[in-house]
Amino acid sequence: MIVVLSGGVGGARFLDGVVRALPPDTVTAIVNTGDDFVHLGLTICPDLDTVMYTLAGLSDEQRGWGLQGESFAAMEMARRYGGPDWFSLGDRDLATHLLRSEALAAAQSLSTVTARLCGALGIRARILPMADEPCRTIIDTDEGALPFQEWFVRRRAQPPVRGVRFVGKPAPAPGVLAAIEAAELVMFGPSNPYVSIDPILSLDGVRAALAKKRVVAVSPIVGGRAIKGPLATMIPELTGAPPSAAAIARHYGALLAGVVVERGDEAGLSGPAVHATDTIMRSTDDRLRLANEALLFARGLAAT
Amino acid sequence: MIVVLSGGVGGARFLDGVVRALPPDTVTAIVNTGDDFVHLGLTICPDLDTVMYTLAGLSDEQRGWGLQGESFAAMEMARRYGGPDWFSLGDRDLATHLLRSEALAAAQSLSTVTARLCGALGIRARILPMADEPCRTIIDTDEGALPFQEWFVRRRAQPPVRGVRFVGKPAPAPGVLAAIEAAELVMFGPSNPYVSIDPILSLDGVRAALAKKRVVAVSPIVGGRAIKGPLATMIPELTGAPPSAAAIARHYGALLAGVVVERGDEAGLSGPAVHATDTIMRSTDDRLRLANEALLFARGLAAT
Repeated sequence: MIVVLSGGVGGARFLDGVVRALPPDTVTAIVNTGDDFVHLGLTICPDLDTVMYTLAGLSDEQRGWGLQGESFAAMEMARRYGGPDWFSLGDRDLATHLLRSEALAAAQSLSTVTARLCGALGIRARILPMADEPCRTIIDTDEGALPFQEWFVRRRAQPPVRGVRFVGKPAPAPGVLAAIEAAELVMFGPSNPYVSIDPILSLDGVRAALAKKRVVAVSPIVGGRAIKGPLATMIPELTGAPPSAAAIARHYGALLAGVVVERGDEAGLSGPAVHATDTIMRSTDDRLRLANEALLFARGLAAT
Repeated sequence: MIVVLSGGVGGARFLDGVVRALPPDTVTAIVNTGDDFVHLGLTICPDLDTVMYTLAGLSDEQRGWGLQGESFAAMEMARRYGGPDWFSLGDRDLATHLLRSEALAAAQSLSTVTARLCGALGIRARILPMADEPCRTIIDTDEGALPFQEWFVRRRAQPPVRGVRFVGKPAPAPGVLAAIEAAELVMFGPSNPYVSIDPILSLDGVRAALAKKRVVAVSPIVGGRAIKGPLATMIPELTGAPPSAAAIARHYGALLAGVVVERGDEAGLSGPAVHATDTIMRSTDDRLRLANEALLFARGLAAT
């Protein structure tokens, strides 16, 4: 059994590679829900949706979020009404939010509705939200505290970051700790450590369970830049150090047995074993190759 | 001041004629909410939406419901998830339901959100839901009691009707009784009396307020048939009499000072004054002409 911790696009693509490399039902993804929020009355889970759409082969690879062939008629009409339009919701995407929100309102858990939606899309890997109850990522900025999506989407990640907090202390979702405990290996996808992986690590029992496991992270930094998102500016804002694979490894510290980094990004790495390769995933072949390399590397390491 | 009681398409088109015939801000519509229901977690108000879209010039005249140029991508995706697809929600239409449901969840009244949505679409007549709190139309059928939309849409109005009831006894929405009291004239649009007008009449104080007013109904029956909907079968099922303008007038009884009927449908009418003309509204010119005729006829009558 393999566990992958994932945020959005980078983690989802790596997870897709792992699912292609292994029997899908041996893979469990634990997905960040710190970015979740309520918008237009709907509970929106951006990372869960990205993982689900990516594994179902439905994600829009060009745009980097949402569904292929998406339309935005509902948003256009909402704009006409003077409704909020800063967070773009596609028409097909709305079906996900509607069915999820309806199920949550009927007291189904996020885990249950996630399993049902993933099942309907033919996904055979197990996708677990990190928690059924809310845990909200708050970005402390020079302009005050902002909920994650307000900072990231509405403010375009512009206000400089002074800290990241998680509000709400939910229990890990059913199966999360058991999946880690049963895992041969845990991989952190190439996701933002502060806002995608840390929310998962903040949950009671997760760090303790990981401490007994062989953990390998894939660095989301390539040549000092983030493939996507605000990570490259967050690292110096939060640590004073330049963005690098070494900064990622330092952040995870003793949890890591190994780290997979972009070739040429090995500088400053000490502690975990290092595997350097091409980490940018442009195609599904890239995902599969990176996953296979990471699995081979991780399986060659002794458990921490 | 003129008040028009309205259900869906027929009432909305007649109302549109009245609004074209008069200064819009002298017209108040009181709209049936007995058909409202919650679907996919959204509060849907079919008659309010039909009135709103019709007055805004946005309704799909061919299909007879919903918005022009509508798409159905969200429903298609919901179907893929195995979600309910018996009630068709267009993508643009979803914006209405989302903004309304969000406002209701934030404890805004249906009147308030209706005024805001209508204002955003440039509607200058006053559109009042009959009530802010739920009043649900239940159809008693040979197969048991069915909520209106279950009977009308899901079961295609097939189970024979034994009775119509309204569950919930809300107060009339703010302004409803005052609008009737201030009205020079009240018109019942060519709507289904049992499921579109009766819910309004069932509210405390409405019949008493109407009893003091000159009330004129436009018959929704043309040559023994209903232009739209299940009225032609409901009349014999509920009264034993064939569908006719006379059956409509008998149903409203002493409330009516006058009735506008299709030319040739005058048979059996006794009691209210009768104006016979072409009542089918194919074009906006038809709406305006019918409204002008009905207003002229009504103004020529003595108050009851």
